[in-house]
Amino acid sequence: MEAVQNEKGQISIHTENIFPIIKKFLYSDHEIFLRELVSNAVDATQKLRQLASFGEFGGELGELKVTVSLDEEAKTITISDNGIGMTADEIKKYINQIAFSGASDFLEKYKDKTDDKGQIIGHFGLGFYSAFMVAEKVEIVTKSYRDTGDNSAARWICDGSTEFELTPAERTERGTDVILHVAPDSEEFLNKARLQRILDKYARFLPVAVEFDGKVVNNTTPIWTKSPSELTDEDYKTFYRELYPMGEEPLFWIHLNVDYPFNLTGILYFPRIKNELRFQREKIQLYSRQVFITDEVKDVVPDFLMMLHGVIDSPDIPLNVSRSFLQADANVKKINGYITRKVADKLNDLFNADRKAFEEKFDDIGLFIKYGILSDDKFWEKAKNFVLLKNTEGEYATLDEYREKIQANQTDKTDTLVFLYTTDRKQQDAYIESARRRSYDVVLMDNVIDPHFINALEQKLEKAHFQRVDADTLDKLIDKGINNESVLSEDDKTKLKESFEQVLDNKLLNVSVEAQPVDELPVTITLPEFMRRMKDMSALSGEQSFYGNLPMSYNVVVNANHPLIGKILSETDATAQQALVKQVYDLALLSQNMLTGTELTAFVRRTVATL
Amino acid sequence: MEAVQNEKGQISIHTENIFPIIKKFLYSDHEIFLRELVSNAVDATQKLRQLASFGEFGGELGELKVTVSLDEEAKTITISDNGIGMTADEIKKYINQIAFSGASDFLEKYKDKTDDKGQIIGHFGLGFYSAFMVAEKVEIVTKSYRDTGDNSAARWICDGSTEFELTPAERTERGTDVILHVAPDSEEFLNKARLQRILDKYARFLPVAVEFDGKVVNNTTPIWTKSPSELTDEDYKTFYRELYPMGEEPLFWIHLNVDYPFNLTGILYFPRIKNELRFQREKIQLYSRQVFITDEVKDVVPDFLMMLHGVIDSPDIPLNVSRSFLQADANVKKINGYITRKVADKLNDLFNADRKAFEEKFDDIGLFIKYGILSDDKFWEKAKNFVLLKNTEGEYATLDEYREKIQANQTDKTDTLVFLYTTDRKQQDAYIESARRRSYDVVLMDNVIDPHFINALEQKLEKAHFQRVDADTLDKLIDKGINNESVLSEDDKTKLKESFEQVLDNKLLNVSVEAQPVDELPVTITLPEFMRRMKDMSALSGEQSFYGNLPMSYNVVVNANHPLIGKILSETDATAQQALVKQVYDLALLSQNMLTGTELTAFVRRTVATL
Repeated sequence: MEAVQNEKGQISIHTENIFPIIKKFLYSDHEIFLRELVSNAVDATQKLRQLASFGEFGGELGELKVTVSLDEEAKTITISDNGIGMTADEIKKYINQIAFSGASDFLEKYKDKTDDKGQIIGHFGLGFYSAFMVAEKVEIVTKSYRDTGDNSAARWICDGSTEFELTPAERTERGTDVILHVAPDSEEFLNKARLQRILDKYARFLPVAVEFDGKVVNNTTPIWTKSPSELTDEDYKTFYRELYPMGEEPLFWIHLNVDYPFNLTGILYFPRIKNELRFQREKIQLYSRQVFITDEVKDVVPDFLMMLHGVIDSPDIPLNVSRSFLQADANVKKINGYITRKVADKLNDLFNADRKAFEEKFDDIGLFIKYGILSDDKFWEKAKNFVLLKNTEGEYATLDEYREKIQANQTDKTDTLVFLYTTDRKQQDAYIESARRRSYDVVLMDNVIDPHFINALEQKLEKAHFQRVDADTLDKLIDKGINNESVLSEDDKTKLKESFEQVLDNKLLNVSVEAQPVDELPVTITLPEFMRRMKDMSALSGEQSFYGNLPMSYNVVVNANHPLIGKILSETDATAQQALVKQVYDLALLSQNMLTGTELTAFVRRTVATL
Repeated sequence: MEAVQNEKGQISIHTENIFPIIKKFLYSDHEIFLRELVSNAVDATQKLRQLASFGEFGGELGELKVTVSLDEEAKTITISDNGIGMTADEIKKYINQIAFSGASDFLEKYKDKTDDKGQIIGHFGLGFYSAFMVAEKVEIVTKSYRDTGDNSAARWICDGSTEFELTPAERTERGTDVILHVAPDSEEFLNKARLQRILDKYARFLPVAVEFDGKVVNNTTPIWTKSPSELTDEDYKTFYRELYPMGEEPLFWIHLNVDYPFNLTGILYFPRIKNELRFQREKIQLYSRQVFITDEVKDVVPDFLMMLHGVIDSPDIPLNVSRSFLQADANVKKINGYITRKVADKLNDLFNADRKAFEEKFDDIGLFIKYGILSDDKFWEKAKNFVLLKNTEGEYATLDEYREKIQANQTDKTDTLVFLYTTDRKQQDAYIESARRRSYDVVLMDNVIDPHFINALEQKLEKAHFQRVDADTLDKLIDKGINNESVLSEDDKTKLKESFEQVLDNKLLNVSVEAQPVDELPVTITLPEFMRRMKDMSALSGEQSFYGNLPMSYNVVVNANHPLIGKILSETDATAQQALVKQVYDLALLSQNMLTGTELTAFVRRTVATL
């Protein structure tokens, strides 16, 4: 065998190899053909409009539009425009050369005359060939704006092989028709409703009128393309309803508009989110030059902002050739950061401009703000000034305000500020009531995100600790180092403890007898903060974990100073004593919403019998 | 302007137009380069193995393997194999011609000798160029298995332009090295851990040993490629742990294996699903010829089967050129149907083979079976024989068995079978207890999917109706047309009703006085089935709806025959009467778990005071 010779040369590509790939495997979704062909038609009209503005076209522009028509009998779909059209030579240049982008060529040619590149959609020069995903034969009938002769229109036909045929055509008006002879396996597209749905999805905000079935299907000037100064609140709300006809009215919105270092416009709406992290029907839509791309914006928008609604339009978000998803890209990170900053600034403005209005909205946007704090330190830096805590009285306070408010009464003996909270205002009512009797403030932490938010705050705030209202008896919840005096002797306490342990007969319970104020219940059930929190977090995460698998143990605290406890102690009849112990214990369980099932049924029947 | 001339010609593509697109925009994720190059290297060794099996290669195969190596200093990543290698001519044919697939060429050439096309991965002839996503210069050093001369090895270099250079190389062993000189913007890939992660993701089950950092990263014969007869239960469990190291042990599995009309192998595992429709960490993985493609199998696997775990490997699932997602395709529907059928058959076999074992697993797979019934009529046709109902006693019955079991005692006066159910065994304990006293059977319907399942069963079963145990008083729950006698006169009843209405003071309550057995509670709260169900469904769906927005109204049924009610009627002191009404009503609320918050706290304090 011969030795290898030094050689330089050109990498090559053969049309017969690549054409089948472009036709069949480039786009994942066949319906894309319509987006691509309508986009091309829009470009053809936009180019003419630009030429007119440069003075290169002196004729009548007329009403520029794109028409999509369906002929079910002839099995054709036709996309027509009255744009620049093509000469036979231009067909040879733009159509017969795959991946030679007419749009790029146009922009290159007129780059000195326009910096408004945003008006031209085309990019890769491949879109036209998506026609072959659904058509067995594609026909183009076109006449250039430059041609005035009667015989200057051209017809191009290709049956999906690499061979084309070019002939003269009858056409008197400037513009282009692309006629798809739909293949037998794609006849699903020969359906008015189907085409309407595809156009509604992709063409809804194209900048040139698109007509189908006698009606214009698009809004050519969606408000994100306008300046905020031209727009009223009602305009934003109307546009929201246009995007999401079934949606509830948004709370407020942000108009995004940036030129540098990337180009991005859009409107993000804040919906009422409340307490739900559920599946979102109303997603942010991503556009590129008014062409709908996708509503999977996972990488463009920070995770916590995915709860917002609205549109983002950017020609600078790098899409792959099928445009169906994003290229990994550093630009995307910048866009991410920009959006986060804008959202934080908007919230800060709202907070400063009208505190009361901000408080009214807080229940609806709190989840979102807290999620942002958890996921983005830069967001926290801004949000720590406007995130609010709401107490059981319905009063709101910023973190600084709240610290000030509780400092005097809720600092424990180690100089740590103790935030008391409830995760369920109704369920923990008895405990809240006790805390309020001591003028303790109780924060509502009943949002799905609050367990995480509490952990984050304990890390971010100094010398601060959170305790749920039922984490301990009142004196120990905020331990100021003061001991109540007990009316019972140690000996009595031991006897009581034994009586309770005997009746309750549950090794997981931890019974103690403590001197509490007389206005507290005879028996209180407490759930130690650390254990309970670990178990809650474990349940939230759904993962197997050490804490999740531990049985729930809890404390049964007998109030040594309550008269009923004295009565129990002095009761000499064992059966009567046991019945009383059982009843005060059941009432403690009831207060903690832990008396359920057969135990509850028995309690009710027993109590009915005493009436 | 000249008239258009008739012309035929060839569509063409220019390398300088398409090459940048292939390099930059074809693949969405840059890490894909490693999958593509390792796949090519695997193909090179597989081809040699095949040639040996045809007798076309008589040399030593040796230990066929692929080696990935990283040189952080030189900023190179090298993918080496000891496969067939290439001659200079083959480089010109396969490398210099983009989209000319060497794999297809090989299969075409040897199509008479092998029908085992599954061993060759390559398809589009584009994968190699993905190297330019991360490399500024790509070098190939290769020596063909056919070359024995010392100077027959070749080096190919290309800097990402369309120009290449071919020179002789020093290489004595057969095989190919692809050396990537990583570009500055892709230096993230010059990282051992990163490469390891990419290989773990894509190369984990490639059929030829892939070595990186001195260790083989893959299992070359994953069990799905073997015959079920060779495998033990332990093999399946071990493989499950390999796929999901953190997962709980699966309940059972199905080994999929079909040749016609499409090729598909795989193993689907049934996890313990229980009562959760939460985010799934352990997804089904889709492979094509042992190359990992994606774990987004949305279109390949029916929705309800997405809860399963495992792998599916099929070269017939049509992927687009970047392979990252599926083409819309009719084959996919067939695969869908096949998998559904196999799953239904497996469940049916398990049911028939060991009823007891099936029952033990039912709590874990019931959600899945019910979801299948709701979403696929063909699945229902099979599942109706093995889907089970479980009652409060822990007994399971098929639909036919259950009908038989309750027919005598639970058919109402309109000859409709009434299925009683509970959505929360603890919460509805008092009502279940009442129903059980009448020997009514109560089915557990506490799964998230059960509200939908109940609706589906009512439509599918004839003359069957479901009532929750608290939907009405016991006599009306299954209305057999028998009336209890009342100890109270109509006049007394009216007086009672007025007393209750006055104390309860709530327009949404519907108070009635009815003759019930004396062993029922003095007051019962019932929630009419239709309204409650509509509200539950509305809450589940999360949508705004007519029913969702209605306030919850409920019935307060006073038991005319209970002695306490007689006592209330005869109580002359208004305050005492009101206190008694309030207490029996609170106890009814307690039984229905509706006494909460401040009302509950007050009840507890009031009751403590009476002790």
